[in-house]
Amino acid sequence: VEGSAGVFVSGGSEANFTCLQAARQWAAQVDGWDVRAEGVQRMRYPFVLYQSDQGHFCIRRSVEAMGLGRNAIHIIPSTPSLQMDVDRLRDQILADWGAGLRPFCVVATAGTVETGTIDPLDDLADLCAEQGLWLHVDGAYGAFGILDERVAPLYKGIERAHSLATDQHKWLSVPIDCGCALVRNGAALRDAFSLTLPNQDEHEPWLSEYTLQRTRRFRALDVWAVIHSAGRNGLARAIAHNIKMAHLLAQLVEAEPDLELISSGPLSIVRFRFAPPELRNEPLLLDRLNKALVHEMQQQGRAFLTSTSFQGKEALRACIVNYMTTETDIRTIVDETISVGKKEHSAINRGSTKKR
Amino acid sequence: VEGSAGVFVSGGSEANFTCLQAARQWAAQVDGWDVRAEGVQRMRYPFVLYQSDQGHFCIRRSVEAMGLGRNAIHIIPSTPSLQMDVDRLRDQILADWGAGLRPFCVVATAGTVETGTIDPLDDLADLCAEQGLWLHVDGAYGAFGILDERVAPLYKGIERAHSLATDQHKWLSVPIDCGCALVRNGAALRDAFSLTLPNQDEHEPWLSEYTLQRTRRFRALDVWAVIHSAGRNGLARAIAHNIKMAHLLAQLVEAEPDLELISSGPLSIVRFRFAPPELRNEPLLLDRLNKALVHEMQQQGRAFLTSTSFQGKEALRACIVNYMTTETDIRTIVDETISVGKKEHSAINRGSTKKR
Repeated sequence: VEGSAGVFVSGGSEANFTCLQAARQWAAQVDGWDVRAEGVQRMRYPFVLYQSDQGHFCIRRSVEAMGLGRNAIHIIPSTPSLQMDVDRLRDQILADWGAGLRPFCVVATAGTVETGTIDPLDDLADLCAEQGLWLHVDGAYGAFGILDERVAPLYKGIERAHSLATDQHKWLSVPIDCGCALVRNGAALRDAFSLTLPNQDEHEPWLSEYTLQRTRRFRALDVWAVIHSAGRNGLARAIAHNIKMAHLLAQLVEAEPDLELISSGPLSIVRFRFAPPELRNEPLLLDRLNKALVHEMQQQGRAFLTSTSFQGKEALRACIVNYMTTETDIRTIVDETISVGKKEHSAINRGSTKKR
Repeated sequence: VEGSAGVFVSGGSEANFTCLQAARQWAAQVDGWDVRAEGVQRMRYPFVLYQSDQGHFCIRRSVEAMGLGRNAIHIIPSTPSLQMDVDRLRDQILADWGAGLRPFCVVATAGTVETGTIDPLDDLADLCAEQGLWLHVDGAYGAFGILDERVAPLYKGIERAHSLATDQHKWLSVPIDCGCALVRNGAALRDAFSLTLPNQDEHEPWLSEYTLQRTRRFRALDVWAVIHSAGRNGLARAIAHNIKMAHLLAQLVEAEPDLELISSGPLSIVRFRFAPPELRNEPLLLDRLNKALVHEMQQQGRAFLTSTSFQGKEALRACIVNYMTTETDIRTIVDETISVGKKEHSAINRGSTKKR
């Protein structure tokens, strides 16, 4: 897009941080003041921004580091489908304007880290346009899912975002650390960080004028190498395959009486837990069991899952982003969960017996 | 130091940024409030910090990014020796307390980027102790100069700093990007970024709880490899050799009638310019000449110097941090400057002739 700017950074945290700096810069410019000179220490109209209750905590860290304070993040409840509730967002924005605050940015998520849910980007873009807010999309985990044509429609509206944060070191298999901050209004990004006049880097943009970091590694080389070797089609195939493998995992979990499917998002994240029928009405035991289970599985090293807690239920979370993931790997996850789960269950039983 | 914390980051900019977050966190804690939750948007007593007029602009970028605003940096004039003027600093701090501001941090520099000057760290530590301020030392370029025992005494007091930013990718020859943030009060650093309780990472500190960035490269490996192969003595020898080479450059410049020595600091930075005796009273021509000269030298590629401007004089700046620098390299810099300088001078003369 003409006038846009993009810069490689260390990962999703810095990508989001960098985009939010541009958003703040832009909002202050709209209001006719220089946030870099004056800071926000004497704000009469405090900045506020919005994120759903499914959004990632790196946004919170950025906002804290920027001195806005995490109280400046107004958390919008999500709908039952775990998407940001646009009606409640509108109500909150209107209430905040009324309270003398300065709404300036909505942080949407394209692929939440817990379930891979994509916020209703097109509706959010409409609302941001209506209210004069910056729409930032955190696509650290999920943005590249758009390459899979079967889920691409879920991303409708992402092209209207003012900024987008991505992590090449996640779904693009680029070595750690590599993220990217993309900003439509490139001047706002430059204005947020630059120390030189724009005409000084007219011909070759100085990347150090677009981020906090100055001296930097040649990250673009890693990205180029991956794109060059896999091609757009290769990447799309790998991502579509990951999503297919996640759906397979969800199916296998559903078919196993000893497992319970917690959530299966549109992308490649699946949450489930070990829950044999005889224990289904023992929630505390199940929580304890699944917590021990994930720890033990990580120790065993045959499959790597992380723990997750959703609506009070301890569970396991699989996030499939390795292009080499096979059906065998997926079946290993299922088998390993059941086998380690049974072992942990009998260990707990023995423990209980001893105590009696 | 017990209770201290250190974390590798992308370089000097992020190292300084990280340390300043710890300083801000600590100051708010002293005052009994939570800066991460509340931010600085409704400050009744705005934070201010101090830096000499020789300090690096990455401090300004950090302070801007943190929402304090660059107006929160009170620039303290330096003495004729280019060190922060401690008396004027004290006056400014007292005036600021009196004006209802909240002085919280003094940013000293151990090796300024222009001349390699080291601020009077011990006196600054005394003043910070007296006034209850955090002493941060920006040692991005110069901290490792302390390894040269001949200049080590200049660093007296650095051991009293609350935080220190260093760049391993400068004088330690570690590949780009690698800096380090060292904080004596490690809890303040953790409190500035953490999202978990301290007891969750009691045995193995989670580095992601100490910086903005989470997923990270294994930078310690590069640093370990350099230290392992060179050893402390090897590094000290390389650094002492660099400083010796800089002194040689200064001597050679002084001995050349066509060159003028602008400054020769205690470390490895030398500034000088092409100034044949017959042009010494033509300041505008000399500025123009030296600007063209540095550009042409960079294009030629035999020696790499940067341009610098000091007290209105355009000049060349050599910063010697490559352990392989030899006497021949130093002589090449001198020869190349004179040769390119003469060429540029005659080009300017021809240009003037044509115009007449």
